[in-house]
Amino acid sequence: MVVALDITFLGTGSAQPSATRNHQAIALRTDGEIWLFDCGEATQHQFQKSKLKMGKITRIFITHMHGDHCFGLAPLLCSMTDNLNPANQNNSQDEQRIPIDIYGPSPLRSWLRTTLTSTYSNLGRPYRVHELLFKDDPVDQNLSLHNNELPGENIHLNSDHVFALPLFHSALEKGYRVQAAPILHSISSLGYVITEPDSPGKLNALIPIIKKHAAALKEQHHLSNPMTLLGDLQRTNQPYTLPDGTQLLPPPRRPGRQIVILGDTYDPSAVAKIVTSENPAVLVHEATNALTKLDFMIEKQNKRTPYSPPTFEDVEKRAKEHGHSTPQMAAAFAKRINCQKLILTHFSARYRGDDSPEAKEVMEEIRNLAVAAFDNRDQDVFCARDLWTFDVKMTS
Amino acid sequence: MVVALDITFLGTGSAQPSATRNHQAIALRTDGEIWLFDCGEATQHQFQKSKLKMGKITRIFITHMHGDHCFGLAPLLCSMTDNLNPANQNNSQDEQRIPIDIYGPSPLRSWLRTTLTSTYSNLGRPYRVHELLFKDDPVDQNLSLHNNELPGENIHLNSDHVFALPLFHSALEKGYRVQAAPILHSISSLGYVITEPDSPGKLNALIPIIKKHAAALKEQHHLSNPMTLLGDLQRTNQPYTLPDGTQLLPPPRRPGRQIVILGDTYDPSAVAKIVTSENPAVLVHEATNALTKLDFMIEKQNKRTPYSPPTFEDVEKRAKEHGHSTPQMAAAFAKRINCQKLILTHFSARYRGDDSPEAKEVMEEIRNLAVAAFDNRDQDVFCARDLWTFDVKMTS
Repeated sequence: MVVALDITFLGTGSAQPSATRNHQAIALRTDGEIWLFDCGEATQHQFQKSKLKMGKITRIFITHMHGDHCFGLAPLLCSMTDNLNPANQNNSQDEQRIPIDIYGPSPLRSWLRTTLTSTYSNLGRPYRVHELLFKDDPVDQNLSLHNNELPGENIHLNSDHVFALPLFHSALEKGYRVQAAPILHSISSLGYVITEPDSPGKLNALIPIIKKHAAALKEQHHLSNPMTLLGDLQRTNQPYTLPDGTQLLPPPRRPGRQIVILGDTYDPSAVAKIVTSENPAVLVHEATNALTKLDFMIEKQNKRTPYSPPTFEDVEKRAKEHGHSTPQMAAAFAKRINCQKLILTHFSARYRGDDSPEAKEVMEEIRNLAVAAFDNRDQDVFCARDLWTFDVKMTS
Repeated sequence: MVVALDITFLGTGSAQPSATRNHQAIALRTDGEIWLFDCGEATQHQFQKSKLKMGKITRIFITHMHGDHCFGLAPLLCSMTDNLNPANQNNSQDEQRIPIDIYGPSPLRSWLRTTLTSTYSNLGRPYRVHELLFKDDPVDQNLSLHNNELPGENIHLNSDHVFALPLFHSALEKGYRVQAAPILHSISSLGYVITEPDSPGKLNALIPIIKKHAAALKEQHHLSNPMTLLGDLQRTNQPYTLPDGTQLLPPPRRPGRQIVILGDTYDPSAVAKIVTSENPAVLVHEATNALTKLDFMIEKQNKRTPYSPPTFEDVEKRAKEHGHSTPQMAAAFAKRINCQKLILTHFSARYRGDDSPEAKEVMEEIRNLAVAAFDNRDQDVFCARDLWTFDVKMTS
């Protein structure tokens, strides 16, 4: 059975929140759990506006320590673990006992500890912070844990220059895998690659074969219901020899979907090597700066003379100077890792995310800049909006 | 000239935010400046929804360190000092240079410093934190200031057991006064009393007298325009002897309005002694818990048997156990300090702040509980709602 997997964009803005774009937060929902990527201010407010229950968050991944990606973490933890909060009262006792695993760069652990301690916060669930340590980052000494804190791991880059994240509880049991690589930004930033466990192969093609041999299987192999062979093949992954000697091969397992979620970056190259799928399902890439008709309108409003419209090169140069990307840069990376879908996010506050014709026109302009740089794959590029949910399809 | 003074409630909820009540934040606007009291998460979002400009904030007062009163501070500072933010571009260069003065209990200073440092935040204006130190609070050593931080004062209780806050820049020049007293809650909490400078007395009554003596003043005292005497009387505050020997007395100065804003509390008695006005203009008091029809409805929904409705005593006991107040307790304090208006806030998330008949009915119930305990002064009690502005009138 294929597990439903979707991604809800709780916030899609950069730096300042606006009426239509909150700070960054991305909720990946799989198998009844929510894994949260980044947690800007008012992420809990966005949860309240969405259909997602924040009490279902089991893991939180921070891409980098800029405030617009993490200022909402402590308040979210307070609310999502408050067992008096009606929104959380459906959580089982088990869910209330399992620690929340939080991953991110230094000094996430000491900052969160200081914040929870300074604000006298009591959480209704334990938590721990696993720090992904870049070269020269000091190792937090864990000397005085917060009341609700458990010791977390210190994760160093392995010999491949990759962070292999330890997973716990359900994610470990089910065989998920998360890796991260350092990507280039004005401060230490991470790209995460999440890989689902493989799922059993499709059985449809085997059904007529078993039906054909049903009588022989009943008589010679004493199977009262030959169709149970289907489950056995999936479970054992071993061939089965039919009464006539034919080998019934188990269907090839279907590789789990791979999701790539990047922090702010002007160059995420290092992530390419942890993308093991030939065709990752989704890439979520920032596109903070773009060149659209707004730039020309603003120039006109300012009545600057002489009037010299910016070029794509100007915009890319400015974006990179601030550690950011343009839609074209995002598309180039999408092409490089051959992803199925590219979702742009982290838009400047000037790119409104509402339904007005003006906003839609500008966002379509931005999308088209990426489409053109992504082999004109018009169906495969999206601009995220707040509270929009993208359903990650299983294609193989 | 009397300065316009108003109070906007940016957030009126407690603990969890709801669709109709955000976390605590109160903007007192006087003389073109905003003084902010508390700064819960998403206060900057509330500013965006209001008519107030966050770039006009000059002083921030934190009542206590619970997260619902301060989690929005660092993100607000980042946004309000971002001189690239169009909302702040009307600020003068002077406004961009003057430090933001932040007052509150320990460990506000070290927490804010850690937060801004950990998130690589660069502010567009300097700030400093003045800590109001309770008995046994350690003095922050200020060893390594944040890049945008200036040293702040350490304010100890004076011999009257009162915090006299040092004011700077415009507030000092104009003669404002702010004092605070420790009030009882589950953690160190403060009640602030803000006193406007006195303003010149009313001149209306003097006009006919001067008119009567105008001819004599012109001839004998050589005043080409006798009405200028009005300004002289205000400025010098000295009597003036008219040509016939009558003493013209300067009009008595009008005492500045006094505003009392309390943090969470189950007993704010200590504030009474810093209320120097016989008739303070406004008291803002929390009323987290109340007994309303909702309690009976919830009991019924839960189908608890035997059905035993809570009493006012039960609710007051529970409120106090959590360090909070009921509307009746707020009214008792309003009566004690003889304030002109009582505004209730910090409502539990169950008390919605919208326009639905159900919500209005419950809030009117809460208001009436306070009215009954405040000598039935129906016109003088208000329940705050998000984004509601209360105009503080000059009554004398």
